Amino acid sequence: MATPLTPHLDRLLPTSPEVRAIARELFAQVEHLPIVSPHGHVPAQWLSEDQPFGDPTSLLISPDHYLTRLLHSAGVPLETLGVGGHVLDEAGSRAAWRTFCDHWPVYRGTQVRYWIENELAGIFGITERPSADSADRIYDALCARLAEPAYRPRALFDRFGIEVLATTDDPCDNLVHHEKLAADETFTGTVVPSFRPDRYLEPGRPDWNTLVDALGAAADTPVDTWAGFLDALRARRRYFIEHGAVSADHSHADVVTVVLEPAEAGRLYDAARAGTATPEQTTALRRHLLTEMAGMSVEDGLVMTLHPGIYRNHSSATLRSFGPDSGHDIPMQVEFTRGLQPLLDRYGLEQDFHLVLFTVDETTFSREIAPLAGFYPSVYAGAPWWFIDAPDAVRRYRAAITDDIGFYRTSGFIDDTRAFCSIPARHDMSRRLDCGFLAELVAEHRIELDEAQELAVQLVTDIPRKAFKL
Amino acid sequence: MATPLTPHLDRLLPTSPEVRAIARELFAQVEHLPIVSPHGHVPAQWLSEDQPFGDPTSLLISPDHYLTRLLHSAGVPLETLGVGGHVLDEAGSRAAWRTFCDHWPVYRGTQVRYWIENELAGIFGITERPSADSADRIYDALCARLAEPAYRPRALFDRFGIEVLATTDDPCDNLVHHEKLAADETFTGTVVPSFRPDRYLEPGRPDWNTLVDALGAAADTPVDTWAGFLDALRARRRYFIEHGAVSADHSHADVVTVVLEPAEAGRLYDAARAGTATPEQTTALRRHLLTEMAGMSVEDGLVMTLHPGIYRNHSSATLRSFGPDSGHDIPMQVEFTRGLQPLLDRYGLEQDFHLVLFTVDETTFSREIAPLAGFYPSVYAGAPWWFIDAPDAVRRYRAAITDDIGFYRTSGFIDDTRAFCSIPARHDMSRRLDCGFLAELVAEHRIELDEAQELAVQLVTDIPRKAFKL
Amino acid sequence: MATPLTPHLDRLLPTSPEVRAIARELFAQVEHLPIVSPHGHVPAQWLSEDQPFGDPTSLLISPDHYLTRLLHSAGVPLETLGVGGHVLDEAGSRAAWRTFCDHWPVYRGTQVRYWIENELAGIFGITERPSADSADRIYDALCARLAEPAYRPRALFDRFGIEVLATTDDPCDNLVHHEKLAADETFTGTVVPSFRPDRYLEPGRPDWNTLVDALGAAADTPVDTWAGFLDALRARRRYFIEHGAVSADHSHADVVTVVLEPAEAGRLYDAARAGTATPEQTTALRRHLLTEMAGMSVEDGLVMTLHPGIYRNHSSATLRSFGPDSGHDIPMQVEFTRGLQPLLDRYGLEQDFHLVLFTVDETTFSREIAPLAGFYPSVYAGAPWWFIDAPDAVRRYRAAITDDIGFYRTSGFIDDTRAFCSIPARHDMSRRLDCGFLAELVAEHRIELDEAQELAVQLVTDIPRKAFKL
Repeated sequence: MATPLTPHLDRLLPTSPEVRAIARELFAQVEHLPIVSPHGHVPAQWLSEDQPFGDPTSLLISPDHYLTRLLHSAGVPLETLGVGGHVLDEAGSRAAWRTFCDHWPVYRGTQVRYWIENELAGIFGITERPSADSADRIYDALCARLAEPAYRPRALFDRFGIEVLATTDDPCDNLVHHEKLAADETFTGTVVPSFRPDRYLEPGRPDWNTLVDALGAAADTPVDTWAGFLDALRARRRYFIEHGAVSADHSHADVVTVVLEPAEAGRLYDAARAGTATPEQTTALRRHLLTEMAGMSVEDGLVMTLHPGIYRNHSSATLRSFGPDSGHDIPMQVEFTRGLQPLLDRYGLEQDFHLVLFTVDETTFSREIAPLAGFYPSVYAGAPWWFIDAPDAVRRYRAAITDDIGFYRTSGFIDDTRAFCSIPARHDMSRRLDCGFLAELVAEHRIELDEAQELAVQLVTDIPRKAFKL
Repeated sequence: MATPLTPHLDRLLPTSPEVRAIARELFAQVEHLPIVSPHGHVPAQWLSEDQPFGDPTSLLISPDHYLTRLLHSAGVPLETLGVGGHVLDEAGSRAAWRTFCDHWPVYRGTQVRYWIENELAGIFGITERPSADSADRIYDALCARLAEPAYRPRALFDRFGIEVLATTDDPCDNLVHHEKLAADETFTGTVVPSFRPDRYLEPGRPDWNTLVDALGAAADTPVDTWAGFLDALRARRRYFIEHGAVSADHSHADVVTVVLEPAEAGRLYDAARAGTATPEQTTALRRHLLTEMAGMSVEDGLVMTLHPGIYRNHSSATLRSFGPDSGHDIPMQVEFTRGLQPLLDRYGLEQDFHLVLFTVDETTFSREIAPLAGFYPSVYAGAPWWFIDAPDAVRRYRAAITDDIGFYRTSGFIDDTRAFCSIPARHDMSRRLDCGFLAELVAEHRIELDEAQELAVQLVTDIPRKAFKL
Repeated sequence: MATPLTPHLDRLLPTSPEVRAIARELFAQVEHLPIVSPHGHVPAQWLSEDQPFGDPTSLLISPDHYLTRLLHSAGVPLETLGVGGHVLDEAGSRAAWRTFCDHWPVYRGTQVRYWIENELAGIFGITERPSADSADRIYDALCARLAEPAYRPRALFDRFGIEVLATTDDPCDNLVHHEKLAADETFTGTVVPSFRPDRYLEPGRPDWNTLVDALGAAADTPVDTWAGFLDALRARRRYFIEHGAVSADHSHADVVTVVLEPAEAGRLYDAARAGTATPEQTTALRRHLLTEMAGMSVEDGLVMTLHPGIYRNHSSATLRSFGPDSGHDIPMQVEFTRGLQPLLDRYGLEQDFHLVLFTVDETTFSREIAPLAGFYPSVYAGAPWWFIDAPDAVRRYRAAITDDIGFYRTSGFIDDTRAFCSIPARHDMSRRLDCGFLAELVAEHRIELDEAQELAVQLVTDIPRKAFKL
């Protein structure tokens, strides 16, 4: 009755027998190498407290907007999935799991299907395909596993082979969980914070004044002047660096940058604080602040990463009911060449400055990102992100940039995930795709086998370590 | 002497033997399934009157701008092809056919070549390749076929296995041919109209006032007020629904939408009617009207389809001599994420609202359309349209969206054609490409064979029926 | 110890055995056909003077920004590579060569790797892979070759099988080297100039007045009026045509065109000459001048080629130290449909007008360029240019346009290179990729083998000859 769930050993590898053979050989080299995860969204608290995960739904479904949005598009109300603080009781949790299993076909062909299938089979030992019929059996099996010590966060962290895990944190965060982990001799992994100051850099937000005040308090620095505000940012960056941070992440609607005279920036800051700044002025200040952040990265060495071009919270009704990150952030066109010119003109040639460009607008890979990374020693072409962290899109990324800049100007893979259990599946997917791509290059005699062998390993070791200064 | 014309049984299937074997098996399931054609441009009159088609040129060449434009670009004057009302006599028709056959190489590698080859061989039993030498023999053979009863519109309709055919009609059309077909017991097919109100929604057109008057007359509704105008539109939609319509189609230069206050919309309507509206105002009114049409779709259930981003009538000299739809409509960039936000914010979560997004700007598939369709239950990712309804582009479409939204958020294939005889070839092309794509997913172990088998059938049955509420 | 350098006979051909066999057969037809190079940047002086090339670095590295930019992005200072007039002595030249060889891995997977590997092996007989270890041996071997008569420019020209080579020249150039070559009976090749007036068409440049004066002097035509300026341009175009030119090349930031009334154009010209024109006015005049150039092409028959959409000199510090063309030109989005409408509306249907559209924005291939070339007899879809003259990008180009316009509306390959020795490798790459693409079409039964055979040859003979009126 049950349909087996058996991820194939050759999944995602090229289908042509000659090329697949090369890809297999390359993948065998890297399949079990440790995971370097320099950008993601797993809460450090999970690892510091090491509490057992709850039920399968609250672990695997509710927090994963990749997964809930497709159910929503199929007509499933988000509240029945426990999204956005709609807490489910045991019956609700089981019902959500049934809904998910019943809708298994909606994931056919998707990245989510790839990940979840590999999680269920690879981590939890599930052997039958999700369906209305198998839902309860799988739910019960997952509950049983999650009660075992081997399924606690730290045990999984070890089992996943994670060497470095970066989290994403608010500049005001006291990083207590990172501190606890660092001080805990029983935890041998590395978990580092990342500085994510977006909200503080958007003077057009209605809550900006409150945020700036909080930043000043966290930094113990008066923020009544432009210089004080910059100092507060510097202080919090320093605090993050002291706690192991290697990067600062930025995600605004665009990557347009400007360079304002300090006096002008000060005037705009004062106006924004006084609530008298026009939208044009708050936008100009935000764009100048991105340049300032590059300057601070030059000073303090934090790798600067950009994740632009998302229309956040597209559905206001969904935002009201379920809060942000509930599956309705939608990509937009983005422009790097002109937008980043002021920033790069000022800092692009600086020694040891690293600027990693991510995008969900694939058109920029061959047109803008690769050409920039192929000239500026500071610029790295970031791995495909979010909607395009997916098999065919990853292949398009490699095909779009490799002709132009090869492999050493790229960031290496980042999983960027809140879904802790998807980390191995995501890295597995990336490794398979990269080995497949390298195998194609070998089969077309564009590189030699020994070069591909070296590259396959470097793509999961040296290359991310260099880009993120690990 | 004659070169044979023999479309290969494996045409368009993957070339790798292992993958081709899977694709063949999938295609065998769907090759002969009935055709569902929920959007196209075949005149209902052809079927209602069932007159024999004329000569080969007036059937296959003159009305098909896909075909005439490439001849034009090769230097052939459009008037010699019978384009835009330049009626050809028998000698002219034969000469045009010779020109076409003589230029057969210009179609090498194109979608048009695929379609016409399959029409000639599959429908008309032509067995030699078009060329200067074979032109007259083929012309004579076609004339002989077209004189046979088996080549009348209804006989072909049956032979093509068309289950549902949607036409595209002006809101003022009385739909007499649809009525006749519905009343005719000897015709067992389904031919439904589609509501296409573009012209009436563009207050910037010089002839808009005349159009609005005609709409009011057709609806028997006074249109001297904004409310009256909306009522007239509602009335005509109702009339179409009573005649079987399931969708309303919209094609403007962009898909920017706005929501105006009713009083403001009324003021703009009055100004537009009085001829005193500025271009900004008529554009705002057009954009608001698109939102209104979504609202009416929520009310009356018509599926809303969007076909934006075309620069119509690029060459004014060609427009003067040959009228619209003469091959010089050129795609432009289009933007959905911001443009549709006001409309979707108001109606995107409404029960049973269907909004199908088509595009000729491929960059929007992975960046905008799939992410929107992956969240809003109302949004469907439309099949590649017009210039990109072509083998490699269709593959890019599947590769661009499937990673993200799988198959069930897509529209299914639409042929969108005026070329009646190309309908089977177009659906055949789509089925082959989809089976090939599914076969690749199976061969890469991304889905299982049983899933691909189910999907191959659903893609030509349930999926278009659901998107278009058939 | 040495790793061999042996470009494979099947390099870049499809990897599937069945398809590769077809591709091999097609490639065998064209591998040794003469080279037609209708657009490039080799100095005519090299051929007219036929002096031995200098050291390997000044021949192969310093002038090739494709190659130096990747070294720069890897941290190598441009001055150590002899870029931008930083002349190297013998030790510096050898050191630069060592740096290049030591950084050989940065080119893995790139177009540059493909070219340079084929140059080293195919032209210079180098048999070991560049590396820190082999650098000096290769350098010495290259020096020895370059001292031989067989490695002088004209000998290489013959050995490369170049039939026609177009250079790119300033309108004020007296074309003395072209004259000498034409008059030299011992030189049997064809070397023609191309008219490249960009600088003279940009009234917003600070040095524009000086340039216009120089143009007037070169044309012996007073340029104190708009009519005089146009006459001076016409005169220089005539001079170029008399020296064999077949095309005029244009590369501005965008391809927006306008049509100004002559009186208005005159007013803007006078204001620009007087230094009183606003930026909007100089931009309008530049855009009108592009339309004027199309008009002159209609008059005098020069093929008009467009290479738009590059942000020139992105790094001002690099520009100051190393001048233009030093590797930091970065592509931007470009728009053709609306931008070229005024120009095409005026001249697009003119007999014998040829307008070849190149782009580094791949999104325009299927969306704009192919649709334009599929209607206007004047428009040709140019081969992928610069950053996208690379294996995967070339495949994307063919896949993006062939569905729509086949092969006869394309320009044929152009190498666009300053790197003389890369010409055979570049044409070899293009031929392999085109044969591979044709083989795929045959294997998918989209065209027949005899058609592919004819096309493979036409793509390197008739097609570029027709587009460039050779």
